[in-house]
Amino acid sequence: MAKSILITGGARSGKSLLAERMTLGLGTPAIYIATAEAFDAEMQDRIGRHRARRGAEWDTLEAPQDLAGVLARSDASGRPRLVDCITLWLSNLMLAGRDWETEVKALTELLPTLHAPVVFVTNEVGSGIVPENALARAYRDAAGLTNQRLAGTCDELWFCVSGQPLKVKPT
Amino acid sequence: MAKSILITGGARSGKSLLAERMTLGLGTPAIYIATAEAFDAEMQDRIGRHRARRGAEWDTLEAPQDLAGVLARSDASGRPRLVDCITLWLSNLMLAGRDWETEVKALTELLPTLHAPVVFVTNEVGSGIVPENALARAYRDAAGLTNQRLAGTCDELWFCVSGQPLKVKPT
Amino acid sequence: MAKSILITGGARSGKSLLAERMTLGLGTPAIYIATAEAFDAEMQDRIGRHRARRGAEWDTLEAPQDLAGVLARSDASGRPRLVDCITLWLSNLMLAGRDWETEVKALTELLPTLHAPVVFVTNEVGSGIVPENALARAYRDAAGLTNQRLAGTCDELWFCVSGQPLKVKPT
Repeated sequence: MAKSILITGGARSGKSLLAERMTLGLGTPAIYIATAEAFDAEMQDRIGRHRARRGAEWDTLEAPQDLAGVLARSDASGRPRLVDCITLWLSNLMLAGRDWETEVKALTELLPTLHAPVVFVTNEVGSGIVPENALARAYRDAAGLTNQRLAGTCDELWFCVSGQPLKVKPT
Repeated sequence: MAKSILITGGARSGKSLLAERMTLGLGTPAIYIATAEAFDAEMQDRIGRHRARRGAEWDTLEAPQDLAGVLARSDASGRPRLVDCITLWLSNLMLAGRDWETEVKALTELLPTLHAPVVFVTNEVGSGIVPENALARAYRDAAGLTNQRLAGTCDELWFCVSGQPLKVKPT
Repeated sequence: MAKSILITGGARSGKSLLAERMTLGLGTPAIYIATAEAFDAEMQDRIGRHRARRGAEWDTLEAPQDLAGVLARSDASGRPRLVDCITLWLSNLMLAGRDWETEVKALTELLPTLHAPVVFVTNEVGSGIVPENALARAYRDAAGLTNQRLAGTCDELWFCVSGQPLKVKPT
């Protein structure tokens, strides 16, 4: 089983930068697997800044929904993959009306079969006040459960605080 | 003084499952002290799933408001208690117009006198954007202060990240 | 370079009390640098309670916007400074229409030149659901980036959980 790492933290906590460093530490060139779909200018701008920062050591694949498929197909390259990020992927699945639990199960079952390493970025979304909006509550529940299942399967879990990594697993 | 443990984390961070394991590790059968009141179908469903997961090693007591009383009366059993959860208890007290600071004081003064262990589950609710709603601000302030006072009294404090426990106290 | 410490955590997580203890541990009397501006009764009340708790070991300076200037001018005293808090300072800059990135850069460039120690308090605001409000999203992005830059420059980073400190940097 290839190494798998999950990096979590709040918004703008430095997760992506940490994940890029860890991925390149596992081998270059690496593959960046983007789950984002650019709906609006704000998101387009964010994607553009991330891509510019990464530079030439990366190829980019897109996996707004079929993440397990993209990981399976890119595995033979032997190159480390960075998936950024799980919470956007989950949001895409939910908006498309797909069964996210089935997709998460496919992902956690795929992981032990992979030969090339994977680093996942996700977000903490459950440490604020309970949202009044039922859809937002359903989303934060799904995100929390997805993070739990992925962290249970990955070899390492890191929590980013103000850009500084804290190792949670293994202890 | 019997062992006391506080487990905190965001929504769906695996706190309840960790707490159940820790409580059973302190002795079986154990006592589950539910603070939840089932107002609606969403909550009823959540309570049902938690109860089904716990199974036969547990008895259940209810303490939506009189938590110190229920802990005092169940102490002679010598059995470990799991209180799930403090933030719901606090919410019940505030909705009932009771003085939560007095109740928290009663709880933290009771703890050192107990003979049987207690594990508390609570929630992080103060790491999002400041709520616009004054009641929500008052609640998150109360939750933060309650967590501080309880963590100051308990022997151990654990922070759950994506289902993985991080020991905060003792260091 | 004098010692610099950043303390972060959610609302009511005990950051201010921890910061006061750490600052007094670096020397007395100390200087409290308040970034708060009292707009309303709720804030006035909070400021009053904090001031009463600090007592006679502290002098107070105010720096709602010109934080780098106040730190530079108070440095010759040799006394430890406590800045409480960075997220309010950032909010003041944004409300005044000032370029917060320039101000943060001035602050992080000043730090290595200081002779007297500084302890900063900041807030985690990015671990809840993404705010619907664009201004709130911009603010939480700015707060996250500011915390990253400050934590990258400071010698120590502490994360407060339920009033208990967790050291994140150095590991």
